[in-house]
Amino acid sequence: MTQRDAWRRWLPTLPVLDWGRTYNRHTLTSDAVAALIVTIMLIPQSLAYAMLAGLPPEVGLYASVAPLLAYAVFGSSRVLAVGPVAVVSLMTAAAIGTHAVPGSPQYWAAAMTLALLSGLMLTLMGVLRLGFLANFLSHPVISGFISASGLLIAASQLKTLLGVPVESGNFFSTLWGVVTQAAHVHGLTLGVGLACLAFLLWVRKGFKPLLVAWGLGPRLADMLAKAGPVLAIGVTAGLTWALDWQSQGVRVVGHVPQGLPPLTWPTWDPSLWRELWAPALLISVVGFVESVSVGQTLAAKRRQRIEPDQELVALGASNLSAAFTGGYPVTGGFARSVVNFDAGAQTPAAGVMTAAGILLASLLLTPALYFLPQATLAATIVVAVLSLVDFGVLRRTWAYSKADFSAVLATLVVTLGWGVEPGLVVGVAVSLGLYLFRTSRPHIAEVGLVQGTEHFRNVLRHKVLVSPRLLSLRVDESLYFANSRTLEDRINDAVAQRPALVHVVLQCSAINDIDASALESLEAIDARLKDAGVVLHLSEVKGPVMDRLRHTAFLKELRGQVFLTHYKAVCTLAPEIV
Amino acid sequence: MTQRDAWRRWLPTLPVLDWGRTYNRHTLTSDAVAALIVTIMLIPQSLAYAMLAGLPPEVGLYASVAPLLAYAVFGSSRVLAVGPVAVVSLMTAAAIGTHAVPGSPQYWAAAMTLALLSGLMLTLMGVLRLGFLANFLSHPVISGFISASGLLIAASQLKTLLGVPVESGNFFSTLWGVVTQAAHVHGLTLGVGLACLAFLLWVRKGFKPLLVAWGLGPRLADMLAKAGPVLAIGVTAGLTWALDWQSQGVRVVGHVPQGLPPLTWPTWDPSLWRELWAPALLISVVGFVESVSVGQTLAAKRRQRIEPDQELVALGASNLSAAFTGGYPVTGGFARSVVNFDAGAQTPAAGVMTAAGILLASLLLTPALYFLPQATLAATIVVAVLSLVDFGVLRRTWAYSKADFSAVLATLVVTLGWGVEPGLVVGVAVSLGLYLFRTSRPHIAEVGLVQGTEHFRNVLRHKVLVSPRLLSLRVDESLYFANSRTLEDRINDAVAQRPALVHVVLQCSAINDIDASALESLEAIDARLKDAGVVLHLSEVKGPVMDRLRHTAFLKELRGQVFLTHYKAVCTLAPEIV
Repeated sequence: MTQRDAWRRWLPTLPVLDWGRTYNRHTLTSDAVAALIVTIMLIPQSLAYAMLAGLPPEVGLYASVAPLLAYAVFGSSRVLAVGPVAVVSLMTAAAIGTHAVPGSPQYWAAAMTLALLSGLMLTLMGVLRLGFLANFLSHPVISGFISASGLLIAASQLKTLLGVPVESGNFFSTLWGVVTQAAHVHGLTLGVGLACLAFLLWVRKGFKPLLVAWGLGPRLADMLAKAGPVLAIGVTAGLTWALDWQSQGVRVVGHVPQGLPPLTWPTWDPSLWRELWAPALLISVVGFVESVSVGQTLAAKRRQRIEPDQELVALGASNLSAAFTGGYPVTGGFARSVVNFDAGAQTPAAGVMTAAGILLASLLLTPALYFLPQATLAATIVVAVLSLVDFGVLRRTWAYSKADFSAVLATLVVTLGWGVEPGLVVGVAVSLGLYLFRTSRPHIAEVGLVQGTEHFRNVLRHKVLVSPRLLSLRVDESLYFANSRTLEDRINDAVAQRPALVHVVLQCSAINDIDASALESLEAIDARLKDAGVVLHLSEVKGPVMDRLRHTAFLKELRGQVFLTHYKAVCTLAPEIV
Repeated sequence: MTQRDAWRRWLPTLPVLDWGRTYNRHTLTSDAVAALIVTIMLIPQSLAYAMLAGLPPEVGLYASVAPLLAYAVFGSSRVLAVGPVAVVSLMTAAAIGTHAVPGSPQYWAAAMTLALLSGLMLTLMGVLRLGFLANFLSHPVISGFISASGLLIAASQLKTLLGVPVESGNFFSTLWGVVTQAAHVHGLTLGVGLACLAFLLWVRKGFKPLLVAWGLGPRLADMLAKAGPVLAIGVTAGLTWALDWQSQGVRVVGHVPQGLPPLTWPTWDPSLWRELWAPALLISVVGFVESVSVGQTLAAKRRQRIEPDQELVALGASNLSAAFTGGYPVTGGFARSVVNFDAGAQTPAAGVMTAAGILLASLLLTPALYFLPQATLAATIVVAVLSLVDFGVLRRTWAYSKADFSAVLATLVVTLGWGVEPGLVVGVAVSLGLYLFRTSRPHIAEVGLVQGTEHFRNVLRHKVLVSPRLLSLRVDESLYFANSRTLEDRINDAVAQRPALVHVVLQCSAINDIDASALESLEAIDARLKDAGVVLHLSEVKGPVMDRLRHTAFLKELRGQVFLTHYKAVCTLAPEIV
């Protein structure tokens, strides 16, 4: 690596310089088509997710402009579409719901502060190359968390769909609140909501085949099917205006200010920062994990690659820009990125054009949203989030690994019962705890020689040759502090049971590391074996492990030998069984 | 296993039934001699450690009676000597120092409550077989903690040795307090303290050879050398009485009540329990680790064994008995157990006789302790704890592993600067964090064929044969959630860089486990490779891992093969290089 390259590793890189150089008319056309489709999809989503976060609907539009521009400059994925997403909106509501009344200016200010904190954290993590921290969110925890969040979000929309007032709470109390209010359901609201739900579900499955059957090209049919939510919005808003449903009690979105995203300044209140840093960190990590998974999956399809640490910087910049333009925390969304990819987006310039589309919408279309029933948006959200709910993960992890199943279940139950933040924290704690527990009880097999071969197998499973003078143990785990005592116990037991024992050989083929505690345990084992008149040997020690052991007092004082193969050890120490 | 044996696994066992059956005159004599020596050693230690814990000196004697009897019944070690020990006494002082004034009845009551909680926790952990939890205290953390505790204890004794009043604080503030008080040092107290220190240090090294040179048998010389502290106590107490040093300002132990250990009843105050449970847990774990290490080392010398879970029950019973007989938390001590072993103790009956000896002392000898200078006890403590301090561990771990070094250093610094509880917690957190960090960045080597063999080696270190169509990766770590994404990244990078790539083979010989996250990562890798027109294969998958993979969708949908050996994989996929 040259000096200049070494420097570059620590400087922020600008992927825009990369793809910008080769931009041409062909990529422009592809990007423009993709941008149009994503814009149509993003308008109702932005409004709906902002309301899910407890914010005025226009905030969703604001959060879909500047962040897209920031991502286009810094992002390493060619097709990721950032903006408001369901889970992060829910987490935003959970984080700031205790600090201010939803809808109040303080609430909005807190949402911008959350975006600022999240942006700072993501950028810092990117500069410090801490992207690997997100790896500690295991797939089962993410699955459980996303499913539970989907259910929480769907439950929170029930009150809007039914037109009844219900206190927000955990999943079960929200459902119970809806049940107790069943008598006060507003019929017309429910009718609008159910009709939208049914239509949107049908659009997902049945609309595109129908359009194709009518003779449309599959690409156009797909694009029209994606516009389904826009159709629902137009029709229900039109009906509400024409039939004056508002005076019959259907709640509408109301006045949405027309104009550019405002230039804002988040709150610099230290006490608010202190209270929001923990949720901001969780939002950052969840947003990063969601974004990077989508990005990697899509990049791989074109043999491109994304840089996780660069993605952190890009998401950081997106969130910082959201904080200063009246937005709230954003990340790369799954559905819209897939749409962007399928629609043929070639570069992040598609994101720039999408931002321009949203900007136009917030300048021109907002008056038309006045009569839009809130139930329509609720139906949009429910349809979107129900696709996140996947109980199959419970069955699959149960079949594959009880530890992973426990992590999913704990995350799911705690998220539903206590909320998103405790759910994530408990999920991570359970999965780390179970991993440590598993590695703390390593599989240690006594092995014997398979007659006529040089292979060794577990004495409990196979008919093999052993000698009462020799004990061969194979340790199937790296040795570290949490499991080294298990090895001590195992050897102590074996020695106490075998009066004729003279040699113990540890087969180290699966030991990838030996830490200082395990080294002390090996010293203790050797010392105890010496007291008992038994000699300790090693076999098949890996190169890197041997490099480290070479200069230790343990190896210098070891009376036994280090054999290259276990077979050689047995030939030397117990030739009678070979 | 018969039904009866299956039951027995879950019932508390009584090792006393085991050794009691074969008890005879020979073991009686051995035990009695050992008990005499340990009693002589234990009397000054008990007084000194109780005062270190901020308790009246007689509490140390009380804590050396009932706990020894309880351990004799439940303990699985033949020679472990339980009672007050230095580190646990320091932790007791730290735990209850914030709740009551040292020396007050509330303070004593809190100490008994701490013993009760610790006893309950240890018993519960034993019954639930949670002994493995102690393994999460790594050797480096224990070393750093014990060394720092030794320094903290020595510093806390300086004020008694110098006769100056110093506020207790962290290590550095205590030392600074002593420096600022240097002008008020009480000369006679300092003289007594220094003389005792010098004498005790000399007794450790020079007394026994001298006695042997005088013609005493080595066994008798050893026994007399162990009685050194008793001699120091007798001489300084006699001088203080004869020369009336008390009126000249030498602080003495004063009135020690004569009599049997009282029957006591710990405080059942829920708020106190809530505040003490965390320190009680740390004391339990530290006491258990200290005790079980000593016990295992000594048991191995006679090819005996100890049951860690049985030890938990025994230490639990010991602490419970301490709580009801005016004592405070106890555990198996290193120095006294070694003395007990060396003196020839054969069974826990030696402990019963030691308890009887201490009982006699607390009935008969306490009036003689009135004139004992506190500086003598402080000198006893300093000499005992300085042997715990081992800075060599810093050098050794630095040479062996920087991660372990960081854990020692963090534990040492935090314990000295912030106290025993933060020190332990930070130490455990750092060592677990570093372990997880290490396993989250597994060693993944691209391997190539060594010409003319069937062996594969890292392409970066060796001259090996590779094919542009085939990528062979060897993963040197079990795959789990924290490192599976690293593998994804690694493969994504490799594929993006190699346009000619057709096959990827993962050599799985060092993979001991694949969790559900890693399985999903493998699925993702396979799917992305498929999109990129590359086929994924596995080789040398271990038996238990294969058992688990067999029924997964991943293996069913894998287009590549699972090869028994990596050589076979290369022969099949890239025959041109073989």
